[in-house]
Amino acid sequence: MPMPEIIPIILSGGGGTRLWPMSRPECPKQFLALTGEETMFQMTLLRSADRALFAAPLVVAGARHAALIEQQLHAIGIHNARLLLEPCARNTAPAIALAALAAEDPAAPLLVMPSDHVIIDAPAFYAAIRAALPLVEQGYLATFGINPTGPETGYGYIQSGEELRGGVHRVARFVEKPSAARAAEMIAGGDHVWNGGIFLFRADSFLAALAQYAPAMLAAAKAAMDKARIDGAQIHPDEAAFAACPADSIDYAVMEKAAASPTGQVCVVPVSMGWSDVGSWDALYEIGQNSGSAAPSDRVTEIDGTGNLIRSDGIRIHTVGLENMIVVASGNDILIIPRGKSQEVKRIVEALKDRG
Amino acid sequence: MPMPEIIPIILSGGGGTRLWPMSRPECPKQFLALTGEETMFQMTLLRSADRALFAAPLVVAGARHAALIEQQLHAIGIHNARLLLEPCARNTAPAIALAALAAEDPAAPLLVMPSDHVIIDAPAFYAAIRAALPLVEQGYLATFGINPTGPETGYGYIQSGEELRGGVHRVARFVEKPSAARAAEMIAGGDHVWNGGIFLFRADSFLAALAQYAPAMLAAAKAAMDKARIDGAQIHPDEAAFAACPADSIDYAVMEKAAASPTGQVCVVPVSMGWSDVGSWDALYEIGQNSGSAAPSDRVTEIDGTGNLIRSDGIRIHTVGLENMIVVASGNDILIIPRGKSQEVKRIVEALKDRG
Repeated sequence: MPMPEIIPIILSGGGGTRLWPMSRPECPKQFLALTGEETMFQMTLLRSADRALFAAPLVVAGARHAALIEQQLHAIGIHNARLLLEPCARNTAPAIALAALAAEDPAAPLLVMPSDHVIIDAPAFYAAIRAALPLVEQGYLATFGINPTGPETGYGYIQSGEELRGGVHRVARFVEKPSAARAAEMIAGGDHVWNGGIFLFRADSFLAALAQYAPAMLAAAKAAMDKARIDGAQIHPDEAAFAACPADSIDYAVMEKAAASPTGQVCVVPVSMGWSDVGSWDALYEIGQNSGSAAPSDRVTEIDGTGNLIRSDGIRIHTVGLENMIVVASGNDILIIPRGKSQEVKRIVEALKDRG
Repeated sequence: MPMPEIIPIILSGGGGTRLWPMSRPECPKQFLALTGEETMFQMTLLRSADRALFAAPLVVAGARHAALIEQQLHAIGIHNARLLLEPCARNTAPAIALAALAAEDPAAPLLVMPSDHVIIDAPAFYAAIRAALPLVEQGYLATFGINPTGPETGYGYIQSGEELRGGVHRVARFVEKPSAARAAEMIAGGDHVWNGGIFLFRADSFLAALAQYAPAMLAAAKAAMDKARIDGAQIHPDEAAFAACPADSIDYAVMEKAAASPTGQVCVVPVSMGWSDVGSWDALYEIGQNSGSAAPSDRVTEIDGTGNLIRSDGIRIHTVGLENMIVVASGNDILIIPRGKSQEVKRIVEALKDRG
């Protein structure tokens, strides 16, 4: 029997505020061209468009973004995608449950990817996928672990256990976002990787794990899909049924429990692939420095500046002698913050919410 | 014979770019409310509205600003001003020549004031005027010298000579903008003041000096006024005649020459009156710190910031942890520059001109 093609499952439901003011609820960061000419959503799709490895993609996103998604798919010539449009946000585990239920072949491997990550070295990613695939075929839930470049405290970690096959390890355990001291210890130990939130498993393997660890979630997702409305390439799960679904992440709802179970089959593929979750303007600066893609636009005049990230979608920004600053203008708003402090953006967003 | 009232001559022809992007050719800095609720132009007029001391004011400005000026006069309830509208800019000496020719009483003292200066201590200014007036009545050309607060290199200086009467000195000489070392020497010497560009003289005294030191300028100004068009309170000097007038500052064309002449009668009144020419965003910051008038608007969110000047007329500015920066937004442009470097604004304006 030939190996089934991998179905790319593109998770596009995030509405992150960490890249405010450019990322906003009506157009979150995955739909912005922050790192190049394409948006991160488009680059994620192009990365999984190789017909030798991948079947037609399934995009899981909020219903409000349907038109934006169709426009961005059209712009890069992808016409075979299906859209699974969530009537409300219920975190990643229910989103993936809907996708697994939508797979026509229950044995099909699903490659679950956030749509707002950057992966510079796609061949390294493909090699990691190929390494995991034989175990996935046997029923393993696979996750991709990012080889750490520093003791980051903003990511969860995964400890590798025994090697199951070349480059693929059993997951010893998942570790919550650590303290700085704990992060340094893990890095020094050499057997921990970052949890990149990218997964590979058969649809039936995931649904079986869901039945075991989160049965209420599975039941709600099934009810939502049984009553789903199909409109061309768009799948609209039933709103009332999905609204009743418990909200949880795939890590908490499934992966951690499966990894902790004596019968669970969870593996990790450590990989170095130029990965970034672009989780802050500081993170985008780091990518820009490495890839050269953060070149200022003609809306930006920077004289005698150094170490700045300056972006604008309209406002004309003029600087002289600016050093190590983040300046981001979008619409009628501009953010100005020293580099290294971009996590403080949330304080501004909160202040704006308080003001209405 | 009673002393004639002083005619305030308000020079509003400047189109300074040093406060770009708020100050622009269509609305230069004197017409902006940068230091309080009124514009500097309005504050200059209010400062010379005391009917016990002053006659109706005469505003000298570019014809393109006539509507703006009438609106700003109306807003502060000044209805007796005459407007002398220059068809083209010829620097201060010709502007003052037009004003002197427009004075109905040749013996009337003219108080010549730029419209874009801040004077916090108006009573000190009035006292200086009263001190100079007896000498002005005798034919002296008086200038007001600002007691220096530091060795500034951006101003011209005036050296005081013998005291002619209480608080009023003969001008020993005018000094061009000095080097830093020379400025420090002058400050240490104690007999130098800044040239504030404010003058008091009888119309006929000034016209006589002009006849002596700049006869071509006087002839052109006379020709322009002889053929002037009067329209209500507006005086429109003849364009062709005024275009033929040599352009020069009152300092170069008259004051320096008169001071250097054995027959010249030029005096200076050193005064401390909270003066600033608001010649840069840094200068505005200094005023704001002293007067508390630089409070951020509701368009500015400043969290954990210190030592910043942040202004906007529309764009919403959001900062966290910003220190010692100048941030000024106007229209679709925003300037971001470290404090202490605001003289660099001219490089931006030049870059924009080059780009068209």
